[in-house]
Amino acid sequence: MEYIDKKKACEQIQIKPYKKKELYSYTLGAFPTYELIENEPDKVWKVLVHSDYTDIENLTKLCKGRGISLEVNNKLINKLSDKENCYVIGIFGKYECKLSGDKPHVVLVNPSNMGNLGTIIRTIVGFGIYDIAIILPGADIFNPKTVRASMGALFKLNFQLFMSFDEYANQYREHDIYTFMLNEKETLSLNDCPKSKLFSLVFGNEGTGLDDSFLNVGTSIMIPQSPDVDSLNLTIAVGVGTYVFVNHNN
Amino acid sequence: MEYIDKKKACEQIQIKPYKKKELYSYTLGAFPTYELIENEPDKVWKVLVHSDYTDIENLTKLCKGRGISLEVNNKLINKLSDKENCYVIGIFGKYECKLSGDKPHVVLVNPSNMGNLGTIIRTIVGFGIYDIAIILPGADIFNPKTVRASMGALFKLNFQLFMSFDEYANQYREHDIYTFMLNEKETLSLNDCPKSKLFSLVFGNEGTGLDDSFLNVGTSIMIPQSPDVDSLNLTIAVGVGTYVFVNHNN
Repeated sequence: MEYIDKKKACEQIQIKPYKKKELYSYTLGAFPTYELIENEPDKVWKVLVHSDYTDIENLTKLCKGRGISLEVNNKLINKLSDKENCYVIGIFGKYECKLSGDKPHVVLVNPSNMGNLGTIIRTIVGFGIYDIAIILPGADIFNPKTVRASMGALFKLNFQLFMSFDEYANQYREHDIYTFMLNEKETLSLNDCPKSKLFSLVFGNEGTGLDDSFLNVGTSIMIPQSPDVDSLNLTIAVGVGTYVFVNHNN
Repeated sequence: MEYIDKKKACEQIQIKPYKKKELYSYTLGAFPTYELIENEPDKVWKVLVHSDYTDIENLTKLCKGRGISLEVNNKLINKLSDKENCYVIGIFGKYECKLSGDKPHVVLVNPSNMGNLGTIIRTIVGFGIYDIAIILPGADIFNPKTVRASMGALFKLNFQLFMSFDEYANQYREHDIYTFMLNEKETLSLNDCPKSKLFSLVFGNEGTGLDDSFLNVGTSIMIPQSPDVDSLNLTIAVGVGTYVFVNHNN
C-alpha cells in the first residue's frame, strides 16, 4: 500500500527545488541519502543518481533491496543542488513523529537558523538523545539545508512541533524541565549539574535566548562563561548542556 | 608614532573588499567594531559609519577618546559589506601576537572553515581560554568572515600561526598535550578528564580530524559519542572539550 502511494507520488508530481508547502523534501549528497534509505526506507519516493557517481553498483543494490526506484538524472540533480559535487539525491515524503514519553528531550524554542537546527540534531544524536521538540515559529526541519547540516541524523530521531511551550509541557508532564538562561542571579550553574532520571533541556532562540518568563518554568540553569563574550553560540550551548546532562545522569 | 603610521596608511591606501595579501582587514557591524576599538585601539586605521546609524553620537565620543578618525561613507560600507544591515565598519591593520607560555592553549591543525574558526574563538574565550595556535595551512584568521563569526572575540585573545605541529610543540614544551581523536581503541574517554596544570587541547581538520600519527603525541582523548553519527562537528568538539578541561582543572 505504502509502496503504491510512493509510486503514484513519483509519477504524478514533478520534483522541483524545495518549497516548504510541498509534501516532499530531499537529501543532498550520498552520505545523508544512505542514512535516509537505511533509517526511513518507507518514506523514500525515489533516489536520483548522477551518471558520474562512482559507487552506483552499491547504491543500486541497496535501493533494490528496499524496493526503491533509482533514476539516473543529471539534469534534475543540477537543478535541486546548489553545490557542484552532489551526485546522489533522495526524494522523500515528509512525515510526522511523536516524542518518546520515557526518554530525555531537547526542546528548542523558536530556533531561526536551519544550519544550526541541523547541527543540533547531529550533535544530540551523537550524545544519545533521540527526541527533539520545536516550539513554533521555528526553522523548517525538512528544508534540505537542515537535512544536510544534520548529516542525515534527522532520520534517526523523533521530532515534534508545538504551537507553544505550554502545549509541549502539558503533553509531557513527567519530564524535569531545565531552562538554559543567561540570567545569572536566579540560575543554577551547569557545574552543579542536577540529577534527573527524565529531563527536558530547553534552549531559546539564537538572537534572544529564553525570555525571563522561563525563570518560572522548572529549574533555570546557566553555562558558566567569561564576561569577555556576549553569549555562547546556540549550537555550542546545546552541545555542552547535552553532553554534561547525559554524562552526569548515566 | 603609531598614530602617524595610521594616518599615513589611511591616506595612502584605497580601502577595497578584503584580500588576504593586504595589510588590513575590517569588522562588519557595530558590535565587533566596538570590541575592536576597546581592545585593540592602536590597530584601528579608521571607522566607517553609515548616515542611517542611530547611535552615531556614542561612536563619535568613543573614537575621539581613542584618537581614531570616523568617516561617514555609505558607499564604501555598501562596497565592503555583503549584508544590508551593516552600519559600522572598523578598518584595522593586521598584527601578530605570541601565545602566553603559562596559560592553557587550544591548537587547531589545518582548520578549513572561516565561520568555524570564528565560532571557536568566540567559544574558547567564553570558556576562559585566551590563546589559540593555528597549524598552517588553515583558514585566514583575519578574513572578515572569521572576525564576524568571532563576534569580535578575536581582539581578546592571542593567536600564533605555525608551519607544523612540531614547530608549535618545540616552542611550548611545558604544556601537557591532549589530542582529540576518533580512534576509540587507544584513547582516553573525556569522561575521565585528566588533571593538568597547563594543557594544550589539539583538534584536527573538519573533514579528516587528526591523523593517526597524533596517537604518538601526548595523550589521545575521545569525546564519547553514539554510533549513530559519523563524528561531531568540529566547533562542538572544541566547545565540549574546552568546557570540560577548563572546569575540571580549575
